[in-house]
Amino acid sequence: MSKLTIDLNADLGESFGNYSIGNDSEIIPLISSANVACGFHAGDPGVMIETVKRIKASGSTGLGAHPGFLDLMGFGRRYMQLSDDEVYAMMLYQLSALDGIARTYGLSINHVKPHGALYNATFKDDNLARVIAEAVKDFNPELKLMGLANNNLVKAGEAAGLEVKNEVFADRAYEEDGTLVSRSKEGAMITDSDLAAKRVIRMLKEGKVESISGKDIDIKADSICVHGDGEKALEFVKEIRRNLKEQGIDIETF
Amino acid sequence: MSKLTIDLNADLGESFGNYSIGNDSEIIPLISSANVACGFHAGDPGVMIETVKRIKASGSTGLGAHPGFLDLMGFGRRYMQLSDDEVYAMMLYQLSALDGIARTYGLSINHVKPHGALYNATFKDDNLARVIAEAVKDFNPELKLMGLANNNLVKAGEAAGLEVKNEVFADRAYEEDGTLVSRSKEGAMITDSDLAAKRVIRMLKEGKVESISGKDIDIKADSICVHGDGEKALEFVKEIRRNLKEQGIDIETF
Amino acid sequence: MSKLTIDLNADLGESFGNYSIGNDSEIIPLISSANVACGFHAGDPGVMIETVKRIKASGSTGLGAHPGFLDLMGFGRRYMQLSDDEVYAMMLYQLSALDGIARTYGLSINHVKPHGALYNATFKDDNLARVIAEAVKDFNPELKLMGLANNNLVKAGEAAGLEVKNEVFADRAYEEDGTLVSRSKEGAMITDSDLAAKRVIRMLKEGKVESISGKDIDIKADSICVHGDGEKALEFVKEIRRNLKEQGIDIETF
Amino acid sequence: MSKLTIDLNADLGESFGNYSIGNDSEIIPLISSANVACGFHAGDPGVMIETVKRIKASGSTGLGAHPGFLDLMGFGRRYMQLSDDEVYAMMLYQLSALDGIARTYGLSINHVKPHGALYNATFKDDNLARVIAEAVKDFNPELKLMGLANNNLVKAGEAAGLEVKNEVFADRAYEEDGTLVSRSKEGAMITDSDLAAKRVIRMLKEGKVESISGKDIDIKADSICVHGDGEKALEFVKEIRRNLKEQGIDIETF
Repeated sequence: MSKLTIDLNADLGESFGNYSIGNDSEIIPLISSANVACGFHAGDPGVMIETVKRIKASGSTGLGAHPGFLDLMGFGRRYMQLSDDEVYAMMLYQLSALDGIARTYGLSINHVKPHGALYNATFKDDNLARVIAEAVKDFNPELKLMGLANNNLVKAGEAAGLEVKNEVFADRAYEEDGTLVSRSKEGAMITDSDLAAKRVIRMLKEGKVESISGKDIDIKADSICVHGDGEKALEFVKEIRRNLKEQGIDIETF
Repeated sequence: MSKLTIDLNADLGESFGNYSIGNDSEIIPLISSANVACGFHAGDPGVMIETVKRIKASGSTGLGAHPGFLDLMGFGRRYMQLSDDEVYAMMLYQLSALDGIARTYGLSINHVKPHGALYNATFKDDNLARVIAEAVKDFNPELKLMGLANNNLVKAGEAAGLEVKNEVFADRAYEEDGTLVSRSKEGAMITDSDLAAKRVIRMLKEGKVESISGKDIDIKADSICVHGDGEKALEFVKEIRRNLKEQGIDIETF
Repeated sequence: MSKLTIDLNADLGESFGNYSIGNDSEIIPLISSANVACGFHAGDPGVMIETVKRIKASGSTGLGAHPGFLDLMGFGRRYMQLSDDEVYAMMLYQLSALDGIARTYGLSINHVKPHGALYNATFKDDNLARVIAEAVKDFNPELKLMGLANNNLVKAGEAAGLEVKNEVFADRAYEEDGTLVSRSKEGAMITDSDLAAKRVIRMLKEGKVESISGKDIDIKADSICVHGDGEKALEFVKEIRRNLKEQGIDIETF
Repeated sequence: MSKLTIDLNADLGESFGNYSIGNDSEIIPLISSANVACGFHAGDPGVMIETVKRIKASGSTGLGAHPGFLDLMGFGRRYMQLSDDEVYAMMLYQLSALDGIARTYGLSINHVKPHGALYNATFKDDNLARVIAEAVKDFNPELKLMGLANNNLVKAGEAAGLEVKNEVFADRAYEEDGTLVSRSKEGAMITDSDLAAKRVIRMLKEGKVESISGKDIDIKADSICVHGDGEKALEFVKEIRRNLKEQGIDIETF
């Protein structure tokens, strides 16, 4: 019987100029894939270089592009209504920027995960998902596209012929349709790391998760989203890792 | 006896969002190298894609990166005092952005020419020239670096092991030290296209130009800078081309 | 019997840095209210000063603030999903910036008209309209708020106790609900200036306009939106003015 | 005999969007004047509103505008070579933005202190100082202009008829010409808070400070620059305050 493996991913390289954010050096050893901001919603050229160097030094963390809306003031968390051409161009520019920097330091991009409002908007907008997938494929068909498990982005990636990665959230409740329960609703966040780990392990072993309404839904888990901002978040990641290992599940870059 | 050739280069892709500037489609057939803005001082992701497509369609115009200071409001014409690391990172980001877009459309960058205040600042700042050359070499040692003829940028490029291209100006007067006479001084601009062509031809054939003080100085001419903004500028380019051809000098991408 | 008057308004001051747009000096004498960009979607500090000076020199054109989303690349035409606090702060900052510049040159703001996607989004979003009206009132309760005739913005302005101005479009068809027919639909634009003038005159005299479906709807007209970009647009404005004057309607700042 | 008083000033409101910087709520009670970023090098509309509210709530801290170069990535610490008109416009826009926000919350600006590279550039560039002073005067001749003690900015302010405030640095060594010793030189920083306080007290009582070369120089002290970033900085401010009070010197907004 083959061993179960899972990827842990986190957002990195989100500092900007004089502004520092996140604990990149502490979270890198705990994850297997890093989503690196590309200068539109966060990150700047110098930060991108530092981040690429840090990921390279780790030796085992996969480098991912984390493109977002051009909205530093909103940290890419505010939806912007762009045309297809604008989304396509914005994707291509950001992928290119990170890719060139990575190659200069001897690395290459392994996956792409859209950031914030760009990621969330694909839940309801399959055309947006399609344009994102097309840009990734046109840029480099070897890149893996990460999106919400069983949702538009991974479907669009598959339709475009890309390898896709289903992302699940250990600390979030799910609606019956497989989307995330809005943070404004009660029960949206799962703060008990044991429960969080149990849910993830069930996703991996059974392909199921209990939605907020109590109904089981199908879910495919290739990567778990974790966070590195703050002591508590780091502790949560460590506990998830411990639980996964106890269950014989390896954490590995896809 | 081998035939004399020269390159003609112009700045392109300087539109931004709703703002249009330049006559890119009219100037492209008249030049052999295009310096394409990379989104910092001008250009945006969509404009860069359109510009790359247009250059590709031309079939014969070489694609160049035209990185500048991050200053859209000043169009990259205002000097900014950056650290070496900031210059290096800013170069790498812009080269990467254009390179990735170009490769997506089946083109590759042929040369790099810094824009505006970044270009001009190298006249007096050989350390800045060195950092620029290093960034270009680290990014891709096959790229050609274009700079003011016989000046710091081409010297730094040579020291870094890059192929360099000496740029001359048909419509500008020269100081004795080989730098350009400031536009604010009388006699700085050469508006007679016959005289301009004669000067360029002499640079090519004799490696000399008469400086504003009347003294001949050595100058190496690999590429002539021309402009495409406005009917008069286009007419000037056409006359330069006519004069060069009459003298049996071919216009070719280096 | 009192004389009928109407205001003509146009967007101005939309240049940015090296980028020029519009024919501000030609349109100013033809209008009675100018909507001046405040540096977020268009305009920059220098352009704002030039525009304020030009409006002052005209002697008779009312100065209006034209705040928009912080999206120069999209010219404020791309909807951005902001929180109420973000909209409020963005309004206050832009109103302040123009107001201070205007006062420095001895002018003061007469009205406020949101720009592009910010204006359009109020058609369906009465909460957005409410936040905009609140920001205007808190900044200066003497300012007049201009919005689509009979729609959310003027309603929100009235509810906030502001003087409001109903804006009508001479060159656009109306839906039965009083919103504008999308430009992508056939019949959306009215290109015949005689017909456009007749429609406006009926709005003024009868308070009615025929919607695209053929049904008459109620409409209040305080100001007509016109455009100054291009020879044809200027000609259209001149013809509207001619028609209005023939009908004895005066063009005056409200 | 009248009592000696001194002002303590610190930079505030430097957060941006999702990025937090500084300890504004902790430093406000310790200072008498706050220099508030205006959205160009730091700060954003929402941050400016929060900062104005916080200063208002303090009841006793004077509100100052802290305009800087339009360079968020460099935090306004990178010199930019602007034309006089560009400096003037940039000053006017930022003063206006903060002033309008302040007035909306019932406050008004008391002083202006240029930020970072804009401040430092005036040490050698008296024309820049003149343009800054002119912009302040044209905007509001009641504003006080703060600049390096006995240097170009206060001289330009005086020439323009403005009330000026000489700023001194408790934690920095001085050159013989009254400018600050560059941070890169040994001895540039004074880390002993007792010594720092003694130096400030001598500036106040004798109008003298010992320069790094050992020679006494004349210095006028109206305000002491302090910093609020980090526990150590706050401790330094508290010790300076303690020392001043022991010497019978009151800390008061000018």
